[in-house]
Amino acid sequence: MLYNYKHVHREGDMVMRVSIIGATGYAGAELLRLLSGHPKTEIVHITSESYTDRRISEVYPHLTGLCDHTLESLENLAGIGADSDFIFIGLPAGYAMEIGRKLSHQPVRIIDLGADYRFRNSAIYEKWYKVKHTHPEAQRVYGLAEIYREKIREARIIGNAGCYTTAGILALAPLVKHQLIDVQSIVIDAKSGVSGAGRTANLSNHFPELYDNFKAYSVTSHRHTPEIEQTLTDIGGQEVTLNFTPHLVPMARGILSTAYASLQEGVTAAMVDEAFHALYGDEFFIRLRGRGAYPETKFVRGSNFCDLGWHIDPRTHRVIVLSAIDNLVKGAAGQAVQNFNIAAGFSEHLGIDAAPLYP
Amino acid sequence: MLYNYKHVHREGDMVMRVSIIGATGYAGAELLRLLSGHPKTEIVHITSESYTDRRISEVYPHLTGLCDHTLESLENLAGIGADSDFIFIGLPAGYAMEIGRKLSHQPVRIIDLGADYRFRNSAIYEKWYKVKHTHPEAQRVYGLAEIYREKIREARIIGNAGCYTTAGILALAPLVKHQLIDVQSIVIDAKSGVSGAGRTANLSNHFPELYDNFKAYSVTSHRHTPEIEQTLTDIGGQEVTLNFTPHLVPMARGILSTAYASLQEGVTAAMVDEAFHALYGDEFFIRLRGRGAYPETKFVRGSNFCDLGWHIDPRTHRVIVLSAIDNLVKGAAGQAVQNFNIAAGFSEHLGIDAAPLYP
Amino acid sequence: MLYNYKHVHREGDMVMRVSIIGATGYAGAELLRLLSGHPKTEIVHITSESYTDRRISEVYPHLTGLCDHTLESLENLAGIGADSDFIFIGLPAGYAMEIGRKLSHQPVRIIDLGADYRFRNSAIYEKWYKVKHTHPEAQRVYGLAEIYREKIREARIIGNAGCYTTAGILALAPLVKHQLIDVQSIVIDAKSGVSGAGRTANLSNHFPELYDNFKAYSVTSHRHTPEIEQTLTDIGGQEVTLNFTPHLVPMARGILSTAYASLQEGVTAAMVDEAFHALYGDEFFIRLRGRGAYPETKFVRGSNFCDLGWHIDPRTHRVIVLSAIDNLVKGAAGQAVQNFNIAAGFSEHLGIDAAPLYP
Amino acid sequence: MLYNYKHVHREGDMVMRVSIIGATGYAGAELLRLLSGHPKTEIVHITSESYTDRRISEVYPHLTGLCDHTLESLENLAGIGADSDFIFIGLPAGYAMEIGRKLSHQPVRIIDLGADYRFRNSAIYEKWYKVKHTHPEAQRVYGLAEIYREKIREARIIGNAGCYTTAGILALAPLVKHQLIDVQSIVIDAKSGVSGAGRTANLSNHFPELYDNFKAYSVTSHRHTPEIEQTLTDIGGQEVTLNFTPHLVPMARGILSTAYASLQEGVTAAMVDEAFHALYGDEFFIRLRGRGAYPETKFVRGSNFCDLGWHIDPRTHRVIVLSAIDNLVKGAAGQAVQNFNIAAGFSEHLGIDAAPLYP
Repeated sequence: MLYNYKHVHREGDMVMRVSIIGATGYAGAELLRLLSGHPKTEIVHITSESYTDRRISEVYPHLTGLCDHTLESLENLAGIGADSDFIFIGLPAGYAMEIGRKLSHQPVRIIDLGADYRFRNSAIYEKWYKVKHTHPEAQRVYGLAEIYREKIREARIIGNAGCYTTAGILALAPLVKHQLIDVQSIVIDAKSGVSGAGRTANLSNHFPELYDNFKAYSVTSHRHTPEIEQTLTDIGGQEVTLNFTPHLVPMARGILSTAYASLQEGVTAAMVDEAFHALYGDEFFIRLRGRGAYPETKFVRGSNFCDLGWHIDPRTHRVIVLSAIDNLVKGAAGQAVQNFNIAAGFSEHLGIDAAPLYP
Repeated sequence: MLYNYKHVHREGDMVMRVSIIGATGYAGAELLRLLSGHPKTEIVHITSESYTDRRISEVYPHLTGLCDHTLESLENLAGIGADSDFIFIGLPAGYAMEIGRKLSHQPVRIIDLGADYRFRNSAIYEKWYKVKHTHPEAQRVYGLAEIYREKIREARIIGNAGCYTTAGILALAPLVKHQLIDVQSIVIDAKSGVSGAGRTANLSNHFPELYDNFKAYSVTSHRHTPEIEQTLTDIGGQEVTLNFTPHLVPMARGILSTAYASLQEGVTAAMVDEAFHALYGDEFFIRLRGRGAYPETKFVRGSNFCDLGWHIDPRTHRVIVLSAIDNLVKGAAGQAVQNFNIAAGFSEHLGIDAAPLYP
Repeated sequence: MLYNYKHVHREGDMVMRVSIIGATGYAGAELLRLLSGHPKTEIVHITSESYTDRRISEVYPHLTGLCDHTLESLENLAGIGADSDFIFIGLPAGYAMEIGRKLSHQPVRIIDLGADYRFRNSAIYEKWYKVKHTHPEAQRVYGLAEIYREKIREARIIGNAGCYTTAGILALAPLVKHQLIDVQSIVIDAKSGVSGAGRTANLSNHFPELYDNFKAYSVTSHRHTPEIEQTLTDIGGQEVTLNFTPHLVPMARGILSTAYASLQEGVTAAMVDEAFHALYGDEFFIRLRGRGAYPETKFVRGSNFCDLGWHIDPRTHRVIVLSAIDNLVKGAAGQAVQNFNIAAGFSEHLGIDAAPLYP
Repeated sequence: MLYNYKHVHREGDMVMRVSIIGATGYAGAELLRLLSGHPKTEIVHITSESYTDRRISEVYPHLTGLCDHTLESLENLAGIGADSDFIFIGLPAGYAMEIGRKLSHQPVRIIDLGADYRFRNSAIYEKWYKVKHTHPEAQRVYGLAEIYREKIREARIIGNAGCYTTAGILALAPLVKHQLIDVQSIVIDAKSGVSGAGRTANLSNHFPELYDNFKAYSVTSHRHTPEIEQTLTDIGGQEVTLNFTPHLVPMARGILSTAYASLQEGVTAAMVDEAFHALYGDEFFIRLRGRGAYPETKFVRGSNFCDLGWHIDPRTHRVIVLSAIDNLVKGAAGQAVQNFNIAAGFSEHLGIDAAPLYP
């Protein structure tokens, strides 16, 4: 069956019916925060296998009075699909592709916040995620609007970009696109708040263990590595292999990514500046703080902005790019709503243009 | 000159022109966050004596792209008054009364986030603030909408309630109003994030001193004490004297207040429940989490909600009321916008109904 | 069998052989930190049912190079008892009394960091802990040296005082002892770091839930309540019933307790000062910071000190006492070593006199 | 005058008289914490120009009962020099060289915790610190014991290694020494707690600005860069130029450094392992956590340990070395005491072998 997105497209002032599968993880709760205030969205179904039949405000009291839906089980997937124009999925890797496959004959469009639909080459997914891809034939678009906006417009399945990957790709895309750096020299050293690890309690995320503490994890092996490589390779047309190192910051939200690369010979600071402005000059959600600037995670907290600052070291001829996002917003739920707005034909920043929360 | 608020009242769908005097403190910045997203407000002037002629986004980069006004000096106060329907003041105690006096012949309405206009009896202000009140004749209303909503509607000068006081008064008002407690037995033990101390850097707010630390301050002497006493006395009709003890929590935002009082003989749990529902059942910004419930500061972070939970101890016949607010929102800027909405004839929650930021 | 503590008593300069049952909880790890540096102690056995046969430095890498014992199972309890002069127990309520019972015919002495041996009246234990006491005939001493030092010297079983209780009792003991306050007016509002909740990971202690958050818990029902009441009643000779409210501070260690009580008529500030100096003037671990002083949890972090400051409110005729301890040291492991030093005939501060870690 | 360190050398069991100039900064306070518990040290003078004539326990209440010296002015420098075997200096850059010059005819030995005596080539100091060196002829030794132990033994002036530099050098020294990496490929991405910025309050270290926030600073320009380069160049015999990027972690203490370098062709994981064990196998303060390990800052908190873990990425043929220290201990005061112990002929870990404080 040929997918025709116009089936589910409505006129600009119509309201979209949306459902969230896996609504009780942090990304799901953040979707509820944003969508409950979105002027052109009606939340239809929300699901949770752990909290079925409970109200969402019991699980997340901050939503009391704003969103009091009762959580359903996934059992009635077909019905949820039939009732919804869009389905957001906030489940661990491996589940979304099953849902996508089962819904493949319904017109509902899917925005998956997990990794299942992020890779064009399913073999890469299978290698890093160590699981067979069960929906490899799915037409999917990588959900990073600043890079793939046009494809997102009519996409049926959107594989929403990951948190670290968003910070890493947006920092380097201008340099890779304009061939200003040696793509084999890239090192991305990223630092994230702990909400990125999800809501499942375990010793490594136990408060007293992480508080007043700082550490790296998954050095050389984090699964966002191939996602960044895939996209930078696509943007620059050259195979990119890089080091990506995540760290845990003792805070709940926010990513700061510090990316290093060797500049190609002859590349000047002005050329670097120009590359950033050329690619992002018109982007609402990318704030070019400029050369020499220092983005901070709290300057974007709670918002869908990605702040960028860059530095050039004449001693080593390297460029260092700093990018800051809120991992749950631009790195997850906010980006999903941005993709949704594009796909639904809405203004791109509808419902996600609130100011960051500072201090 | 008789003040006629209708001069500056516009029709429901008109936009109010507002200015902020003292826009670079935390309360001022929070006003900018809220007002820059308020659908019926136009920000006209913002002032700062320390950062005159600089753009607000240089001082607060989180506002980049959302609010790029240039900070003015207060020198042109008359002009600011003439251009504005409402002026918000976010200055240390002692300045607002001067501004109010100077603007007393202009129709502009004033919402002061400081203490100058909070006391009906200027002598109490003078005793606790150790400064002469220079505008004692001012008609003013205490800006706590859940208690004084009707008076706020037509008020010319609103003395916006303080942060600790909001948490304390809202917790006890139902019990005092219904005479359920011994008003001489009240102890309020409150805990606040550090933003409540303002943006002026000093050793006591230096990051390494406060981080991973907890302490009390101003025991028996905090200036919010008489403000709570004044309002509870007014509500209950009996003179209230109480202990209020503030503490600093190593976090930036949020107040949790734990209030203790002895129940009058014969008072039952059901009577306590009923008192809360009777007073607050219809309030949008007060979320009655119920008897036995535990409000947490993060459940209201970034929002204008006040969450309430209460507990009764049959062993000691005391009631313990827990209240949680965001000190910069319901405790300052959000409350100011709530008062503004009422005074301007807008829907009370316009621009301040966004969900809290969790986690 | 009559217990004769002299069996296990050695000369002053001899080394005591100690074992820790339940060494992988936070209190156990803290005991290892302290005892591994104690000059007259040899650690013989350490046990853990969860980590049997693993080295302690795998479970707690901070101990690498300092303590590399292998964790044993409790199965060989009799052998552990035979090898040890003292056994420290760091297990959840209900286990220690079983161990105590089984070891009742061996000369080994026991310091239990849990609640099983804290109550003189087992019925109170059974009521609050909802479990039958299986060793009610045990001779036991409440392990709070500043109050019961003489009894600790020859005790066979020491029920080490709890964390909140230590902070609460030490704050009020002078006032209760000298009959300066109305013992029915006491309110203790206490705030603790999260390590007090132990090392078992669950949602309520999951990092993102607690970070940047503050809340109360167990209002009117915390099990340290009867422990405080028992001891204050014993000290003052009058039945004490009080409110104790614990709160969680987003930090790992430290308790600040704020205690309120009404002064008896005629009690002056000087009388209050005198009561503190009379009881604690010679105590090494109690630092009288004085009237008007503000103890902070970080001033005692990592140390066995209890800092005290007190305030008198002439308006309400109440006294407010602030006490700060490190919940894992003076509130648990340090206090246990203090009790051990006394019982072993060592200098009381041996191995626990290091300076606090600040900032 | 030829300096003869034997003048001030005492027999192994004698006590050294020490003074601290600049005792009220964080490094000074940490020296007091450590030296007040050091068994062979007598603190003679402590100075502070800001707090002259006040007791140190008023400035740092955590030292109450442990160290109650009165702070003196520097005016009597010659007398302080005459009374002391060793002087520790904890002053901002530029002051220590003046003191060293003035004391150059006295036998007292100097351990400077600042940068004045860290550079063999004063021109590098002058370039990065933008100040003329006024004591360039001083014989000095770089105070990093694991690298320069033998020279430290008889040194008159020791330029104690910086915090970031200690973490960076110790991570890379084995690889540089054994020529295993391309020394032009080094990137050091370091993260520090805020105490590293000192005790002077300013907006950038104001609690609400940093809390729940993460940022980089001094990209390409931090003054620890040439210090790391100097030492690695010395160790490897090849000119090293590198990128060093510091970040602020919202916590008070601790540095985690993540160092990246390209392995030379043919270098295997076993060769890397061997290099670490060869250089550090016998070091007490370096804990080789091994290949694949994750040091965390809290595993070394409050201690003089440096924990090391390393990772090899076969995809990029890079090595990533993680090092964790407490910036105020191994990165400042603890390292100073370690150097002092060596220079005084004491056991190297005397007074600084306490276990880290966890959690």
